[in-house]
Amino acid sequence: MSDIPLHKVMHALGSPVRLAVVKELLDGDVHQGSEFDFGVGQSTLSHHVKILREAGIVQNDPEGNRCLMSLRSAELDARFPGFVEQLRVLTVAE
Amino acid sequence: MSDIPLHKVMHALGSPVRLAVVKELLDGDVHQGSEFDFGVGQSTLSHHVKILREAGIVQNDPEGNRCLMSLRSAELDARFPGFVEQLRVLTVAE
Repeated sequence: MSDIPLHKVMHALGSPVRLAVVKELLDGDVHQGSEFDFGVGQSTLSHHVKILREAGIVQNDPEGNRCLMSLRSAELDARFPGFVEQLRVLTVAE
Repeated sequence: MSDIPLHKVMHALGSPVRLAVVKELLDGDVHQGSEFDFGVGQSTLSHHVKILREAGIVQNDPEGNRCLMSLRSAELDARFPGFVEQLRVLTVAE
């Protein structure tokens, strides 16, 4: 995580679907992708979650057929202080 | 500006060159692209500045051959409270 550049995080957040995923994960819980309707199919969602994972934003533990994911709040906050809270403010305001 | 979605702003910031441009503009001054070496040619830089402009992040007044640009701090702050300051913290920390 410490070697992930800021532009990579921004790029990962630069899609409506990925931002919607992050918004749902801001509650700090572990969620399944299937809990939400992001308006895309499962394989497309997996692709988006992969980009978020590679940017260090989400933790994604494939468990059987389920796609469990959660926000890496602590790591993000250590690397980019205040950014998680900023995302909370901005995604709620939008 | 008020109708620009957050993901579009994030996408615009999701490139090393565009983030470097924004970092230079965070001083609030009007700058010419030619003042800096972003490691890309003029036409590539113009392309990046266009994306930043279309996301409402920079104001870009072409004046003759010069490419004058500045950050739209006030508009950004009105639309996404705290985000400009957050960018300052994050780009300096990086």
